[in-house]
Amino acid sequence: MTTQRLLDVTALEAALQRFADARDWNGFHTPRNLVLALTGEVGELAELFQWLTDEQAARLAQDPATARAVRDELADVLMYLVRLSSVLGVDLDAAVREKLVANGVRYPAP
Amino acid sequence: MTTQRLLDVTALEAALQRFADARDWNGFHTPRNLVLALTGEVGELAELFQWLTDEQAARLAQDPATARAVRDELADVLMYLVRLSSVLGVDLDAAVREKLVANGVRYPAP
Amino acid sequence: MTTQRLLDVTALEAALQRFADARDWNGFHTPRNLVLALTGEVGELAELFQWLTDEQAARLAQDPATARAVRDELADVLMYLVRLSSVLGVDLDAAVREKLVANGVRYPAP
Amino acid sequence: MTTQRLLDVTALEAALQRFADARDWNGFHTPRNLVLALTGEVGELAELFQWLTDEQAARLAQDPATARAVRDELADVLMYLVRLSSVLGVDLDAAVREKLVANGVRYPAP
Repeated sequence: MTTQRLLDVTALEAALQRFADARDWNGFHTPRNLVLALTGEVGELAELFQWLTDEQAARLAQDPATARAVRDELADVLMYLVRLSSVLGVDLDAAVREKLVANGVRYPAP
Repeated sequence: MTTQRLLDVTALEAALQRFADARDWNGFHTPRNLVLALTGEVGELAELFQWLTDEQAARLAQDPATARAVRDELADVLMYLVRLSSVLGVDLDAAVREKLVANGVRYPAP
Repeated sequence: MTTQRLLDVTALEAALQRFADARDWNGFHTPRNLVLALTGEVGELAELFQWLTDEQAARLAQDPATARAVRDELADVLMYLVRLSSVLGVDLDAAVREKLVANGVRYPAP
Repeated sequence: MTTQRLLDVTALEAALQRFADARDWNGFHTPRNLVLALTGEVGELAELFQWLTDEQAARLAQDPATARAVRDELADVLMYLVRLSSVLGVDLDAAVREKLVANGVRYPAP
């Protein structure tokens, strides 16, 4: 396993916890609820790409309205993913580092 | 918008780029392919929770095999999300900060 | 394989084909586009269940507005699934009969 | 609303009910569990298409192994969808007919 940190989501985890605390939402943030919410956001992201050709998808950033919508959905997916990891007590940085090592073994570079 | 950085995925983005470069995978990493791959990983995550009660889901970390599987799927979802954002040129930190501000307006704390 | 027909989607397939023909949508109905559209609809369905307890979900039909929304999303998922199967030339009745036999072998009844 | 029946899933609903009864699975088939299971199967379907070009996806039936895998996943998605509708007491035929009428209003043919 590499020892270099690959990501830092500490401040985001804290911000999401404060957000939930302030609205009394912790009771709603069960693992299964958050998995369903994550599914919903990935669905919204898929909808933005469903009728695009690969060429249109690659040039997405040139249309400000669509680019903004995609950006918002990527943020939503990430926030539910980080919140789910927090609630489950999973260290995403360690999880990602371990998975990258495993992927390197599974798909050796030529 | 808050100016404090909420997450840092720079090193992960670079690691994923190196991984794709070394395997000549960049041609596969189109936005639509990555959205489908992200969907697949969220599906695998959902499968780990589908037959659990809320109580079992909350105690997931106590079963090492399931905890490991969940950890791996969370990592997979995150890696495809970060890769997709890279390919689209989206700054996830800025996207998340803007979305948190928008959510604060939409759901004011009591 | 059982020989009894388990479902008949012939009329729905024809209705969806006429709908696409009349709007010149066949070019959009590629397999990958329809998989993304299916993902989007499953996401919308998941959103309707994300904050409900199991008890609330079981009593869903008692709230007319939510029941209507769920019914609409189930229809959307089914229509994209049937359309995708049509485009791929898959006979859903045969596919389901074969899968049920396979599941019976995999999970024998006690 | 059209009065012509568009689909008949009665026999499939009965077969799935018998399957669950024989294995004492009814307790697992809550709406939320089935939504998560449906998500899982759509994810598996997406994985079969994630690295294909549109051309490869259109010619999928020519590769027997992939065609078989796609057929199985389509069956899995359909079975969970029909089971979920049963458990919720939703009449899929009526739901689809109503949605088609609504779609005709929303997207008028030219």
